[in-house]
Amino acid sequence: MVTDGRVSEGDAMAIAIEASEAARGRTSPNPPVGAVVLDADGVVVGVGSTRPPGGAHAEIVALQRAGEKARGGTAVVTLEPCNHTGRTGPCSQALVEAGIARVVYAVSDPNPLARGGARTLEGAGVDVESGLGADAAEQGPLRAWLHKQRTGRPHITFKYAASLDGRSAAQDGTSQWITGPDARAHVHAQRAKLDAIIVGTGTVEADDPLLTARFPDGSNSPHQPVRVVVGERDIAASARIRNADAPTTFLRTRDPQVVIDALAEHTDVLLEGGPRLAGAFLAAGLVDRVVAYIAPVVLGAGSAAVENAGVGTISDAKRFSIESVAVLGSDVVVSAVPIREGAVREPDRLAEEK
Amino acid sequence: MVTDGRVSEGDAMAIAIEASEAARGRTSPNPPVGAVVLDADGVVVGVGSTRPPGGAHAEIVALQRAGEKARGGTAVVTLEPCNHTGRTGPCSQALVEAGIARVVYAVSDPNPLARGGARTLEGAGVDVESGLGADAAEQGPLRAWLHKQRTGRPHITFKYAASLDGRSAAQDGTSQWITGPDARAHVHAQRAKLDAIIVGTGTVEADDPLLTARFPDGSNSPHQPVRVVVGERDIAASARIRNADAPTTFLRTRDPQVVIDALAEHTDVLLEGGPRLAGAFLAAGLVDRVVAYIAPVVLGAGSAAVENAGVGTISDAKRFSIESVAVLGSDVVVSAVPIREGAVREPDRLAEEK
Repeated sequence: MVTDGRVSEGDAMAIAIEASEAARGRTSPNPPVGAVVLDADGVVVGVGSTRPPGGAHAEIVALQRAGEKARGGTAVVTLEPCNHTGRTGPCSQALVEAGIARVVYAVSDPNPLARGGARTLEGAGVDVESGLGADAAEQGPLRAWLHKQRTGRPHITFKYAASLDGRSAAQDGTSQWITGPDARAHVHAQRAKLDAIIVGTGTVEADDPLLTARFPDGSNSPHQPVRVVVGERDIAASARIRNADAPTTFLRTRDPQVVIDALAEHTDVLLEGGPRLAGAFLAAGLVDRVVAYIAPVVLGAGSAAVENAGVGTISDAKRFSIESVAVLGSDVVVSAVPIREGAVREPDRLAEEK
Repeated sequence: MVTDGRVSEGDAMAIAIEASEAARGRTSPNPPVGAVVLDADGVVVGVGSTRPPGGAHAEIVALQRAGEKARGGTAVVTLEPCNHTGRTGPCSQALVEAGIARVVYAVSDPNPLARGGARTLEGAGVDVESGLGADAAEQGPLRAWLHKQRTGRPHITFKYAASLDGRSAAQDGTSQWITGPDARAHVHAQRAKLDAIIVGTGTVEADDPLLTARFPDGSNSPHQPVRVVVGERDIAASARIRNADAPTTFLRTRDPQVVIDALAEHTDVLLEGGPRLAGAFLAAGLVDRVVAYIAPVVLGAGSAAVENAGVGTISDAKRFSIESVAVLGSDVVVSAVPIREGAVREPDRLAEEK
């Protein structure tokens, strides 16, 4: 795609989405945006992503890298450029001043304070197009931030590892390791992109986890999410989760809503269990995505991945729809999102009897 | 691939494997073989698959369809043509008499009574090649038959449907339905290709299943496997499994080895649970494949898919390797085969701590 240095706007958006993804976990409460500046010939002359709060937005970083080459060029951005003077000036104005002739963005800004960038750009004579790469940006790097804009609460992913028969530990409580090294490396890479990780006191007691994001060589990732320990049990002073590798918060409650309220400043949050805490979040309808790492292992005994989700009979099952399925080394990872009320399965004849 | 009527030998093998698959469930104790005859120009002039016991082998069916056009042509077969006069004459001789110039087969015949076909063909001046499509034939339609030739016992697939958190029923015992219509249609299509289906008395009591193979409109498939009810409880005279739609056998035991011995005449057998019977087969090392239909549903309570598999601690887990993962409508189906003794995972640094 770069043989003569020119790229299509679609390829530029793919680069912008990658830059957006790379900024995840470091921008809250701002969205992790990615931006690419193409010169008038369609050659990439600047790539940027949102800097940590107080730093430059993605468009500004990309414009600074492009310099004079931005004049007459195109900016390709994952989110509508902001129109808002906060800690930084409005990006729409900066794009106009840099002489950008065309702006292509994936997702419109739902934030009432920041939106209107497209109108400002058009008013200044810039050609504006939206929607390119919208699905990839919405389901990918902007997902949690968009969720928070819409709902006012952080996006909660419930993640667990289990055997094929749904056990998160063997009969004697041992669980290291059900999944293989590729799945574990994936978990750590995901942790490094989060604001916070929730875990129950029972899991802390049983496994004494570090809950840090680490590279496969064991060293810590530069970004560490806040470790949030939820439950009414005391945690030993010697627990590894109290170490200095990442901040840790203790919430003395079992109520998911209280946890959500306490995490109001966060955007992208991972719930790592245990089974009863996960059940409480599921029962309260506070899980926005389930990511199950399923190992081709059978245990036949031991604790389940989820307990007490408030489901008594099959018609009350918490139903999700599969978003993606992938093989990671020896394991399978299934990602699923809640089916909204009113979505009902079609009956069929085979349904009448086994 | 058929624009001028000629096909490659690889395409012909794909057709033969399809014909082989279509014969599954109707040929025991003979293998479900598929055969394609190409004329001297490489045009398909005959396709055949093994007829039920006492009937013609696949090569004979394909040769009959080809007639005189077989002369100077090529036979493409999933299994080495037999050299054995049983209820039918040897296929190797029939191929020579039909004037076939070349034979391509996927898998060599491991059966000492039948093998030697390749040598007979070569002795008669026929060009012989083996191995084309071998993996697809071995993992696909010939799998159970080859397993029985090697081990002397039927091939056992343990199949179950479960929620993402590994429950096969909700807290109140209801389980209809966890998976969606596509997964159920797939189960019925697979049942129609089997010799026997094993189910525990507990499952018969709880669900009163028919355990027949049915089409999506509810009508019975022409081939029905034997229903084998295993366990020490009495089954009600009114149980639907006693109906006339398929033969039913009752085995008053809980010992998987006794079940295997009783099913010695069968080749391709499905174990449909319940959880304790599955656990006993897994503990005894008598499961040759696990097929898990996993629905994106969370129950948080209710019976597990497997109980009592003889695993007390994680290092004793029954480990499998994933053979395939597919999305079927709203659900995921994972197929996995046992990892043989001695296959050990590599340790890694992330393995040291959570």
